[in-house]
Amino acid sequence: MAETGKLPERMTAIAITGPGGPMVLRPEERDLPQIAANEILIRVKAAGVNRPDVMQRKGLYPAPPDASDLPGLEVSGTVAAIGENVERWRIGDAVCALTPGGGYAEFVKCHAGSALPLPSGFTFTEAAALPENYFTVWHNVFERGALKPGETLLVHGGSSGIGTTAIQIATALGSKVIATAGSAEKCETCVSLGAVRAINYRQEDFVQVVKETTEGRGANVILDMVGGDYVTRNYHAAAVEGRIVQIAVQEGALANVDISRLMTKRLVHTGSTLRPRSNEFKATVASALELNVWPLLGSRRIAPVLDMIFPFREAWRAHERMEEGDHIGKIMLDVA
Amino acid sequence: MAETGKLPERMTAIAITGPGGPMVLRPEERDLPQIAANEILIRVKAAGVNRPDVMQRKGLYPAPPDASDLPGLEVSGTVAAIGENVERWRIGDAVCALTPGGGYAEFVKCHAGSALPLPSGFTFTEAAALPENYFTVWHNVFERGALKPGETLLVHGGSSGIGTTAIQIATALGSKVIATAGSAEKCETCVSLGAVRAINYRQEDFVQVVKETTEGRGANVILDMVGGDYVTRNYHAAAVEGRIVQIAVQEGALANVDISRLMTKRLVHTGSTLRPRSNEFKATVASALELNVWPLLGSRRIAPVLDMIFPFREAWRAHERMEEGDHIGKIMLDVA
Repeated sequence: MAETGKLPERMTAIAITGPGGPMVLRPEERDLPQIAANEILIRVKAAGVNRPDVMQRKGLYPAPPDASDLPGLEVSGTVAAIGENVERWRIGDAVCALTPGGGYAEFVKCHAGSALPLPSGFTFTEAAALPENYFTVWHNVFERGALKPGETLLVHGGSSGIGTTAIQIATALGSKVIATAGSAEKCETCVSLGAVRAINYRQEDFVQVVKETTEGRGANVILDMVGGDYVTRNYHAAAVEGRIVQIAVQEGALANVDISRLMTKRLVHTGSTLRPRSNEFKATVASALELNVWPLLGSRRIAPVLDMIFPFREAWRAHERMEEGDHIGKIMLDVA
Repeated sequence: MAETGKLPERMTAIAITGPGGPMVLRPEERDLPQIAANEILIRVKAAGVNRPDVMQRKGLYPAPPDASDLPGLEVSGTVAAIGENVERWRIGDAVCALTPGGGYAEFVKCHAGSALPLPSGFTFTEAAALPENYFTVWHNVFERGALKPGETLLVHGGSSGIGTTAIQIATALGSKVIATAGSAEKCETCVSLGAVRAINYRQEDFVQVVKETTEGRGANVILDMVGGDYVTRNYHAAAVEGRIVQIAVQEGALANVDISRLMTKRLVHTGSTLRPRSNEFKATVASALELNVWPLLGSRRIAPVLDMIFPFREAWRAHERMEEGDHIGKIMLDVA
């Protein structure tokens, strides 16, 4: 293991001291993570806050058995140590990475293939906003959903981190994006990012608007994190041969659906979650992102939408903000 | 249009004289169908009976606007006339074909690309049993479901025409097939055709048996024509990344499903219906069948399972048989 030689033995991390509200998040002293042969240690500069962190804090989404109990699924920083089999990275490299947990900390480890270089010109805070959303959107919209240029993408939660990312990438790659969001301000954000139409779901029926906007054809791909009664409505809003990709079920997992519509429209209803996937899978997505999306970031054709940035010792405030639901784009933690 | 010169002007066909029970099927005199430039006229020798014919007879599945009002979606026979753009077929060729309706008749027309040569050594009655099941199984199991050698296929309705076809093709191409059926005799048929396990759904829980038979992994592809409460059970019986393909909903189109399972297992739930597809699509499936499956039929590695054969003027008896549900394999009409 190559090291800088100047690594401390202990670090500060934000622990979940028990299931509960935001205040259970408290700074703790911990040992530095030990890395394996294919892993790197990152000296964290910034970390992203994601909904699974909130669910983990509430005790609803336990960390996988081999993962850190600390929250935090994405960071940026500099490489502080590398495992003996790692060839891509050198000490000091600026990276952003998907982590298997433990991102709310001064140091975190991850598989070498889960890291990407900082896009050209990016700050560490901007870069830490990328991994969760970009891995998720790339795999679900472009791989699983197979969105093609010229097709229409419907994105629910258009002003969320996932939503803003999907609008930007799909628009940049030649698709027409329709987004739903819960306020006029959020709808404005969606349109400013490239959506051809934003739907305030509190005032309009998205099925009807999607049909109107596509001359009756419907959406070719639908990215949904809502679930519940949206499932049947997605079936209605989808085009023939449409692909509906489920990445969360915030309004409930149970849905009463008309399967004959799946058949007669030849829909594909699928979905995935990112965290349990293999390191090999994540490395494949990282390569595809570096090839297809990093150039768009480096040239500033697209950039992550940041909401608020909190000091990492006040992570509880970031969780409070997420649970209030007023954020637009990513909520971030500055670590160092 | 090339013709034999000996075609009659009128023919006998079985008409649906009004929505209702089997007895509404009655012989009628009709004009011969007029063919277009890309179509062929077939002098029918045998016709297959399918569940959509029964639904059409009941008034539940109307023929498409441009199709014959006569029932019958598959035939075998000899080519009696060819449209001016048809290059593949000559007068007198022995063919079997998917028809856009009108198969219960002495003559029927179809798109030239919807016909295939009789497999080597096949009788006309055997050949007329192929099109609906083979087009349906090939597209849904191997194209839409992407079943690969070594994977496990679960087929519901294993003793039906579709079921027996799926068991045979998938086994011949190197997959492990598990089938469900409603009696010991039907289960025996499934096993005799190659299924590694047949499940009598009246006595056993297919989810549990599939798990046991696959060492806990589940089925990679599920071909379902049942719907209703099978949908959720299919989600349980499917492997991670499993594909569930819906081709009918005999027990009901409404299903209460747990969408989170779709996500965590990364399932694909899709489906299709054959009749409304384009001529181009059907020609593509025909080519794939001729390449991949016709050699298996020609060498008798697989062969359609025939149930009972009725004279075509007694088509009502064939419908009665299908509605009783005791048949194993295909119910056929001998026309000439």
